[in-house]
Amino acid sequence: MSEITRFGISTDSNLLRKFDQLISRKGFTNRSEAIRDMIRDSLVQAEWEAGSEEMLGTITIVYSHHTRELSDVLTHLQHRYYQSIISTTHIHLDDHNCLEVLIVRGKGEEIKKISDRLIGTKGVKHGKLSLTTTGKDLS
Amino acid sequence: MSEITRFGISTDSNLLRKFDQLISRKGFTNRSEAIRDMIRDSLVQAEWEAGSEEMLGTITIVYSHHTRELSDVLTHLQHRYYQSIISTTHIHLDDHNCLEVLIVRGKGEEIKKISDRLIGTKGVKHGKLSLTTTGKDLS
Amino acid sequence: MSEITRFGISTDSNLLRKFDQLISRKGFTNRSEAIRDMIRDSLVQAEWEAGSEEMLGTITIVYSHHTRELSDVLTHLQHRYYQSIISTTHIHLDDHNCLEVLIVRGKGEEIKKISDRLIGTKGVKHGKLSLTTTGKDLS
Amino acid sequence: MSEITRFGISTDSNLLRKFDQLISRKGFTNRSEAIRDMIRDSLVQAEWEAGSEEMLGTITIVYSHHTRELSDVLTHLQHRYYQSIISTTHIHLDDHNCLEVLIVRGKGEEIKKISDRLIGTKGVKHGKLSLTTTGKDLS
Repeated sequence: MSEITRFGISTDSNLLRKFDQLISRKGFTNRSEAIRDMIRDSLVQAEWEAGSEEMLGTITIVYSHHTRELSDVLTHLQHRYYQSIISTTHIHLDDHNCLEVLIVRGKGEEIKKISDRLIGTKGVKHGKLSLTTTGKDLS
Repeated sequence: MSEITRFGISTDSNLLRKFDQLISRKGFTNRSEAIRDMIRDSLVQAEWEAGSEEMLGTITIVYSHHTRELSDVLTHLQHRYYQSIISTTHIHLDDHNCLEVLIVRGKGEEIKKISDRLIGTKGVKHGKLSLTTTGKDLS
Repeated sequence: MSEITRFGISTDSNLLRKFDQLISRKGFTNRSEAIRDMIRDSLVQAEWEAGSEEMLGTITIVYSHHTRELSDVLTHLQHRYYQSIISTTHIHLDDHNCLEVLIVRGKGEEIKKISDRLIGTKGVKHGKLSLTTTGKDLS
Repeated sequence: MSEITRFGISTDSNLLRKFDQLISRKGFTNRSEAIRDMIRDSLVQAEWEAGSEEMLGTITIVYSHHTRELSDVLTHLQHRYYQSIISTTHIHLDDHNCLEVLIVRGKGEEIKKISDRLIGTKGVKHGKLSLTTTGKDLS
């Protein structure tokens, strides 16, 4: 359907050696195949995050509740988008650290926006967005 | 095993009429039976809340996140007892109101203490503790 | 507003002794006051469970997942009422026992029906319904 | 610290064109930079999934509860690993589809194993593992 192009990548040789080990462990036949796979993944992810189709997602954040008013800020932020947030589960990890997992439903771009706002909040140590489909179109 | 005593209760006649209607709807044969049932329930509840046996409970609270620093206060409070709190689910009900459901595991008296502290926090509109057993002793 | 009636209750004297201890611990001045309080509670509960006002509730059930097809039955049942169930949190208590906490929103009578169906399912060891309001009418 | 290597990738030209658009939207200066970034991500992910350090994760699965006994199978499977699963939130998406989000804590390799087992279960339409750290080592 479409022609094949070839392009060159320059990289640290240490990084490449580790990547080659990973590739062989995962059973890819060569680097091109592995990198095409990663490119496709990143395109699907980007399409979802920019799309207007209804998606489901989980937003996971880790933070310390000792950071002054951070719980307040995160709660206010979530209420602004309350129509897209089905539920938030909060796990008290230890004396200091909180894990919050939001289950979100809405357009990809809306979910992405909520995720960026939460993960970008000062004091949030780590955050991740994981998108999936509503299952309606899956056989 | 034990003798029967009889004692008198004074009450508003309106309240009694409504209670009689409820009793008949629920299929109790008379007031004594219905009240004995309520007394037994309250004793079981009190026994659980004072006990050192391992129990499970849900603590449900409703509050407005607009109350200044209330999210912070509730999060700090929960972290103090983090070893007894399995998870907290937060539902953003509307622009203002939050529902929080804690799933708690521990001695009855410990759960009761956590519940009293949370429900008694200034700004919490409504709260409830519901206790159950771990299922180990149930056939 | 309304006249005072007096009526008699017959009960096991052991039960009454324990109840008297509970009453004094809880700070009620006499049995009539404590029993009027329980009657009022049961009327509020019944009103909520029969009402068409929007309520929030948690339904808590404990069961063994070894009971054949019980997980399947409970999941099917919950899907029938999926529009009223916001989320279900499942805690794997040990090798055998499950705790499930449903957060439910809807008319009181609808929530009561869901709760009765789930708790009445063969194999469910213990269950509880706890109702609260949406907070909209609370100042 | 380490020398630079150059290697070639062959790919469909359509795929490459879309990738170039994504790269420029995301602000990478060239393909090498974007691909090194993806390689590093995949190495971190692989390290986490193979490691014995304590991690946190969410496992998200979508399935139809109409698939015979699937709820039973998934519940049994989760109970086998109950010590690593903090909580499972189940959302009833519609008449047919379920979303389940597990919050998991344990060694990376253990979490990866649980995730592979669940996502690989016949009837599960879609699944995702998202790993994060416990926050202890983050400043």
